[in-house]
Amino acid sequence: MTVELICVGTELLLGNIVNTNAAFLAEQCAALGLSCYYQTVVGDNRERLLQTVHTALSRSDIILLSGGLGPTKDDLTKETVAEALGLKLLEDKASREKIASYFQTRGKIPTENNWKQALVPEGGRAVENRNGTAPGIIMERDGKCIVLMPGPPEELKPMFMEEIAPYLRKLGGEVISSVTVKIVGIGESSAETKVADLMEKQDNPTLAPYAKTGEVHFRVTARAGTETEAAALNAPLVEELKKRFGSFVYTTDDAVTLEKAVADILRKRGLTMTTAESCTGGMLAARMVNVAGVSEVLKAGFVTYANEAKSSLLGVREETLRLFGAVSSRTAEEMAQGAARAAGADVAVAITGIAGPDGGTAKKPVGLVYISCYVCGKADTQEYHFAGSRMKIREYATVSALTQLRRMLVS
Amino acid sequence: MTVELICVGTELLLGNIVNTNAAFLAEQCAALGLSCYYQTVVGDNRERLLQTVHTALSRSDIILLSGGLGPTKDDLTKETVAEALGLKLLEDKASREKIASYFQTRGKIPTENNWKQALVPEGGRAVENRNGTAPGIIMERDGKCIVLMPGPPEELKPMFMEEIAPYLRKLGGEVISSVTVKIVGIGESSAETKVADLMEKQDNPTLAPYAKTGEVHFRVTARAGTETEAAALNAPLVEELKKRFGSFVYTTDDAVTLEKAVADILRKRGLTMTTAESCTGGMLAARMVNVAGVSEVLKAGFVTYANEAKSSLLGVREETLRLFGAVSSRTAEEMAQGAARAAGADVAVAITGIAGPDGGTAKKPVGLVYISCYVCGKADTQEYHFAGSRMKIREYATVSALTQLRRMLVS
Repeated sequence: MTVELICVGTELLLGNIVNTNAAFLAEQCAALGLSCYYQTVVGDNRERLLQTVHTALSRSDIILLSGGLGPTKDDLTKETVAEALGLKLLEDKASREKIASYFQTRGKIPTENNWKQALVPEGGRAVENRNGTAPGIIMERDGKCIVLMPGPPEELKPMFMEEIAPYLRKLGGEVISSVTVKIVGIGESSAETKVADLMEKQDNPTLAPYAKTGEVHFRVTARAGTETEAAALNAPLVEELKKRFGSFVYTTDDAVTLEKAVADILRKRGLTMTTAESCTGGMLAARMVNVAGVSEVLKAGFVTYANEAKSSLLGVREETLRLFGAVSSRTAEEMAQGAARAAGADVAVAITGIAGPDGGTAKKPVGLVYISCYVCGKADTQEYHFAGSRMKIREYATVSALTQLRRMLVS
Repeated sequence: MTVELICVGTELLLGNIVNTNAAFLAEQCAALGLSCYYQTVVGDNRERLLQTVHTALSRSDIILLSGGLGPTKDDLTKETVAEALGLKLLEDKASREKIASYFQTRGKIPTENNWKQALVPEGGRAVENRNGTAPGIIMERDGKCIVLMPGPPEELKPMFMEEIAPYLRKLGGEVISSVTVKIVGIGESSAETKVADLMEKQDNPTLAPYAKTGEVHFRVTARAGTETEAAALNAPLVEELKKRFGSFVYTTDDAVTLEKAVADILRKRGLTMTTAESCTGGMLAARMVNVAGVSEVLKAGFVTYANEAKSSLLGVREETLRLFGAVSSRTAEEMAQGAARAAGADVAVAITGIAGPDGGTAKKPVGLVYISCYVCGKADTQEYHFAGSRMKIREYATVSALTQLRRMLVS
């Protein structure tokens, strides 16, 4: 079955807020095995909403609408959807009582507007809203199903999980199951070239690449009658991807990030880690601290942006800085060794580079970065050239540092 | 003129990512005085994208598309839009050269796929992408304007600001001028209540609030015949906002971020700064390093996630840790003082807290954070309670540290 999302709200059209409802509903619908082909955002405007609802009815089985159920004049989703379906609005007694008690509990008096929220299109069913005054509504007509939900995420999310998802689950027959194969150390194009034949013949399961900064994720998705059958359809393709990408694959677990994969290897081997960052200025340490409970592994980190800090905190020799410069292979290596010593850690990762926009020269252009990984007495130092904004160069440097360290640990 | 957004990507339909591009583009279009009535999300599917483009062409003057310009087979936005407009794809020499040099700089070899990104619909103009390989494209046909941009926000945002916005600004007859009044230290609801009367009677200029993490931005936008007239219309409202919010206003310059505002104050006063971070793990230092040329101000930073690092690197007393715990006002203060001493800096900011999801207790719940600012011998330590995910709590802690330091420096 197909589902379509319509999010109603002028604040979305003006970009005042980010549409997190759409992402939430899309993810939930995918988990329910519903195919979502369109999401639309439209303002609180009768004509344009009417047109959007008619278009959706012509091409989708289920339509989920959010927003525009409030008590104000601007809120006209319910009235407009009823008009599109040719239905009258009738007062729902239970909803009216709930509104009355909601205001009574809070010691407030409802205005005339508020009673509007008790109206339900004929044949429709009001859905309780435990976190606000606007009830949701479920309608079925001509084989289509239309669901109205309030716009505030803290009202919509619990209503969807508690009331709407169980209702939708009964409508569809299929189950969908996904596995994500996460890869680092190889670019998106090269990765895709390696699996062009698999992409070509995809059907069930499907295979889709997602490029992240410095990573490629392949999502394998199957549909079947049961969860077990869907998982069984996915398994051979997941195995094939693992075989082709070998140690480039760092996980097939949705919850595992690259920093968590690195932290897990260190923890298993009983190694502690530290960081020494110049141009990234703490981004590598902050990524490690994304991992809850990382204190077992990451004891300390150093941000040594100025040359004097590289010397005084990490013991980088002044001669090294003078002869090779702060952005050099030698300085990176001394930063890593010095950080390991200063923090008493087994492993240290040092980053030094030119993030721009200024400070580049012909010999040392913006984007030049040296990363040194020091693991139990051995050092591996690499030179990188990144392009893009100051932020992008620093993000690439951070993910490359994690990738380089992981490679050294698993090889 | 009307504008319509079409965001292309299966990852949006599956809810893998939140559509921040739509919010960004919508906000920018509003600032340009363009009316946006529809936003659509559609997958990487030829037929459905074709239908969506046709519908948009029938009702809007300008169509902004994002996503689907990558080198993979999934990426078919350019091909499909060319088909919808009846245009052939031709190779753009400049784009081909840029792709070649992009790979050469990185010492990598482009695959056959990559050259697809050099194709441009006939009569279209390639727009340089400084942060990736996929160029943007601008096309004009039958009085409509169609713009294609890459999907990754770090490529789309700079391209829009540098290339697309100036182009769109010339299309309309009127001139639009915006001023953003950026505020920290006061919540969104309180901020809006303070200007409810101004919001009520807005017309020209308009007044729109945008909530960021820990900040509120008010955008004042006027339309007029000339830039000077528009600016003159904005001026009284901007002054009124400055009067009402006083020292909560940290800038009215779009290019100035909170970290840049803080760095500028320190630079003007000839002060150097350091950081001592526990739960934020380097996020504060990394935000300071967002500011190009910050090395004048930020010499060094410490990530002291483990207790032993707090003692050995910052000299936090073991007695303090034992009696008050790592997450305490006293520890925060000793971290700040110790960091100032260890880095030889005039100013130090220390953050220690419980970011969760585990580690909270009844007395010290998840979200409890202490921030201590040490400025030339004086310390100010504050207790905070933040809600949300581990990442959200750390982001709030970082922006609060900047806010607290700024308050101390300007008061």
